Amino acid sequence: MKVITVREKILKANSQAARENRARFSRKRIFVINILGSPGAGKTSLLEQFAKSGKIQFAVMEGDPETAMDAERMERAGASVVQIITKGSCHLDANMVQAALPRSDLDGKDFLFVENVGNLLCPASFDLGEHRRMVVLSTTEGADKPFKYPAAFKTAQAVVLNKIDLIPYIDFDMDLFTRGIEQVSPKAKVFPVSCRLGEGIDELIDWIEGMKK
Amino acid sequence: MKVITVREKILKANSQAARENRARFSRKRIFVINILGSPGAGKTSLLEQFAKSGKIQFAVMEGDPETAMDAERMERAGASVVQIITKGSCHLDANMVQAALPRSDLDGKDFLFVENVGNLLCPASFDLGEHRRMVVLSTTEGADKPFKYPAAFKTAQAVVLNKIDLIPYIDFDMDLFTRGIEQVSPKAKVFPVSCRLGEGIDELIDWIEGMKK
Repeated sequence: MKVITVREKILKANSQAARENRARFSRKRIFVINILGSPGAGKTSLLEQFAKSGKIQFAVMEGDPETAMDAERMERAGASVVQIITKGSCHLDANMVQAALPRSDLDGKDFLFVENVGNLLCPASFDLGEHRRMVVLSTTEGADKPFKYPAAFKTAQAVVLNKIDLIPYIDFDMDLFTRGIEQVSPKAKVFPVSCRLGEGIDELIDWIEGMKK
Repeated sequence: MKVITVREKILKANSQAARENRARFSRKRIFVINILGSPGAGKTSLLEQFAKSGKIQFAVMEGDPETAMDAERMERAGASVVQIITKGSCHLDANMVQAALPRSDLDGKDFLFVENVGNLLCPASFDLGEHRRMVVLSTTEGADKPFKYPAAFKTAQAVVLNKIDLIPYIDFDMDLFTRGIEQVSPKAKVFPVSCRLGEGIDELIDWIEGMKK
C-alpha cells in the first residue's frame, strides 16, 4: 500500500514548479533570493535600502495576503515590482511565482528578490525556485525566535537581524540570539542592520553580489 | 456532484471539536480567550503582566512550534500553564486544545488564556472553542498590518497595540493604524499598552473581567 498525504502531494507539485522556475532563472542569468520573515520584520524596508544604494540591479516580487501597499512602496523607491496577492494564503508557492514571471521586467537585472508573505512558519516549506534564502528577524521580536521557530532559519543562508538601532530601548539578549543561530543554522551568515538608519546594508549587499559570482 | 475540499473537511472536523470544547468550558464556568499575534508581538509578556497584577485567576495554554520556553516564562510568573508543542505546525486547532485540557489545572480559575502559535495568518481560521479572540500587534510591526493581514483582526473583539513605549523611536503612523482597524474590524476595542512598562494593562483587565459577567 502506498500512502501519499495531501501535504506530500502539494509539496511534490511545488517542487516540480520550483525546478522549472530555477531552470528559467538560470537561463536568464537572474539570481533569485527568497526573503522570509514575520510581518513587520523589515523585509520591504530592506529592499528600499537596496534600491537607495543603487549598487545592484534588481526586480522585486511582493507577496502579501492583501493589498498592494508593499509594491507601492517599492515603486516609490524606484524598483521594478510585481505584487502577488495571495488572498489570505499564508505563503507563496512556486506556481504563484511562475504565474507572476511574465509580468516581471527582468531585462538588465542581475537579481530578483521575492518577498514572501509575512510569516515565520509556512513559507519555509515551499521552494520557489530561488538560489538563496534570507530570513529577516527584528530585534523587537525577541532573541528566542531561532529556537522557537527554527524551520525558516534552518533553510536560510543569511539571517538579517534588523532594528539594531532599537536595542538600547528593549531587552534584547544578543547572546541568546547567537546561541540560537549556532544551534539551528550554524552555517548561516548573520548581518546586523538598521534599515531605518541604513546601517549594515553595504556588508549585506557585498554578500549578495558575492553569491552571484 | 458534491465537492468537499480537504480544507473544508479539516475546518468542519475542527468546528465539531471546538463546539465540544466550548460546551465543556461553559460547564466548568471557565471563560476562554484565544490570543493571536505575530512572533514577538508580546503575547507572553501580556500574560506575564496579567499574572503580576494578581487581579484575575487564570490558567494558560502555550502554543509554540518548538520549545517550552514560553511555559517556563509563565511558570516563573507564577501561572498554571500547559505547553502545546505543535512540531512546526503553524496554528493550534481545537483537537490540540482538547488533548491538553486534562493536563490543565482549572480549579478555582475564572479564565483560560490560550496563546496561539506566533502567526498573524493561519490561527485566524481555527476556532478553538474560545469565547473571545484577542489580537496582539506591536507598534514595531508597522501601522499597515490591519490592512495587509485583515483575517485575524476581523475575528477579534479586542486588539492590543503593544510596545507603545517605542513609538518615539520608530515611524509609527497611528492614524493609519486607526483607519485600518476601522476598516477591517470596526467593532473591535483597541487597547494601547506597554507590557515592558506595565502601561494600559489595568484597562485591558477591566475589559476581560467585564466580558465574563
